[in-house]
Amino acid sequence: MDKLSVVKIGGNVIEDTKQLNDFLTALSQMQGAKILVHGGGKKATVMAKKLGVPVKIIDGRRITDTENLDIITMLYGGKINKNIVAQLQAMGCNAIGLSGADGNAIKAVKRPKKEIDFGFVGDVTEINASLFKLLLRSQHLPVCCAITHDQNGQLLNTNADTIAASLAKGLSKFFEVSLFYCFEMPGVLKKIEDKESVIGEITPKSYTELKNNNVIHSGMIPKIENCFEALKKGVSEVKIGSPLMISGVSKYTKLILDDY
Amino acid sequence: MDKLSVVKIGGNVIEDTKQLNDFLTALSQMQGAKILVHGGGKKATVMAKKLGVPVKIIDGRRITDTENLDIITMLYGGKINKNIVAQLQAMGCNAIGLSGADGNAIKAVKRPKKEIDFGFVGDVTEINASLFKLLLRSQHLPVCCAITHDQNGQLLNTNADTIAASLAKGLSKFFEVSLFYCFEMPGVLKKIEDKESVIGEITPKSYTELKNNNVIHSGMIPKIENCFEALKKGVSEVKIGSPLMISGVSKYTKLILDDY
Repeated sequence: MDKLSVVKIGGNVIEDTKQLNDFLTALSQMQGAKILVHGGGKKATVMAKKLGVPVKIIDGRRITDTENLDIITMLYGGKINKNIVAQLQAMGCNAIGLSGADGNAIKAVKRPKKEIDFGFVGDVTEINASLFKLLLRSQHLPVCCAITHDQNGQLLNTNADTIAASLAKGLSKFFEVSLFYCFEMPGVLKKIEDKESVIGEITPKSYTELKNNNVIHSGMIPKIENCFEALKKGVSEVKIGSPLMISGVSKYTKLILDDY
Repeated sequence: MDKLSVVKIGGNVIEDTKQLNDFLTALSQMQGAKILVHGGGKKATVMAKKLGVPVKIIDGRRITDTENLDIITMLYGGKINKNIVAQLQAMGCNAIGLSGADGNAIKAVKRPKKEIDFGFVGDVTEINASLFKLLLRSQHLPVCCAITHDQNGQLLNTNADTIAASLAKGLSKFFEVSLFYCFEMPGVLKKIEDKESVIGEITPKSYTELKNNNVIHSGMIPKIENCFEALKKGVSEVKIGSPLMISGVSKYTKLILDDY
């Protein structure tokens, strides 16, 4: 089976021109088929402020109303996505930008209103494997922004980690998939203040211990559970670390199911 | 040879939700392969105002500085493009949005600085026929915004009419191409105040007369010259009219080379 790397970068990389450029250079030099998934970071909040659009946060979670969705579509789907694509093209990489609506790439349902109405937020239901196979096999590098659609004309703001995991899982029938979560740390740390304390491997068993000891907490919990879920659904390997781990020059945390 | 329709819509259609929806419905029902090219209308000016970005106009022509290019990329490449794509997907049409950077779809050079420095404005040099053939033959409908790239990482604001003509010409080796310019009038008019006075056909000879008599003037001149140029370069037919001419329910002006 052909190899495929699904690489997710977070807002911190997008925010920093040099870091983004270094990352894209590394990505363009990475062997084999690859897909990039990007978030948008704080740019949406900055733009909302500039435009006088209120940003609603309930229980620490952002609510996507129509105006905020427009901002996200402009930034993630427009400015950030197109500039990343143009930069990759300049590096000789045949990048092609996609939202979930493009080619029906990623379908989602609007998150049902329960205690909180998140607004136009999508939960991924299906990725279009045929489209990604078509693009990858014709040597393209799909660059996916964190926007999906409901196939009824509605765009939906969607978690970039989830998009990356959905793509990795959905394509694991056709490719040997490695999933890379790049973020601001060199991996999952034993001590948050010590960047050298990268945990080399996490298994479901060691994860339970790390969680019980409060080494892994808050935002890292869903991230790691997504990773194990991806491994269970056929993804070959999942790594968490800094953007440059993709070129093998930095440490990372590898998630494995070995103790099953 | 397979038929291909290249359809360009202007800002006036984009501005009007009902008109846009009617047009997209007609487009989704149009037989055969098709490409949509869209401009962005006044939305960029409105957004520039909201963001406090000055819009520079020299000799009636807009200058694209970095901040205005960002706005154009957000709106044309993001909000407008993605919403059109999502709407077409809802109509069962497998639309895929593209800037010129995506898949290296449309290359351009930054317009050389002469009397006026237009800033980040592109003159199309080449369209990527392979990409469009790949997408069209896999039943996609490319939706192109009016942005190109220079292959060195720079996005460029580019005239949508020119993009449509370049696509029509560049693909005429592989398809029997019809080029449709949809605008706010039902065609080229004999009398601007009489919408019934659509000129059915314009030949290079009648064009010269119409120009001499000042029936055709200002912005219509480059439009029509682009049309004749397209016909000379292998495009099968060029029509100018209202958006709904594509479904055959309205009049149009047909450009022909017959008197050559």
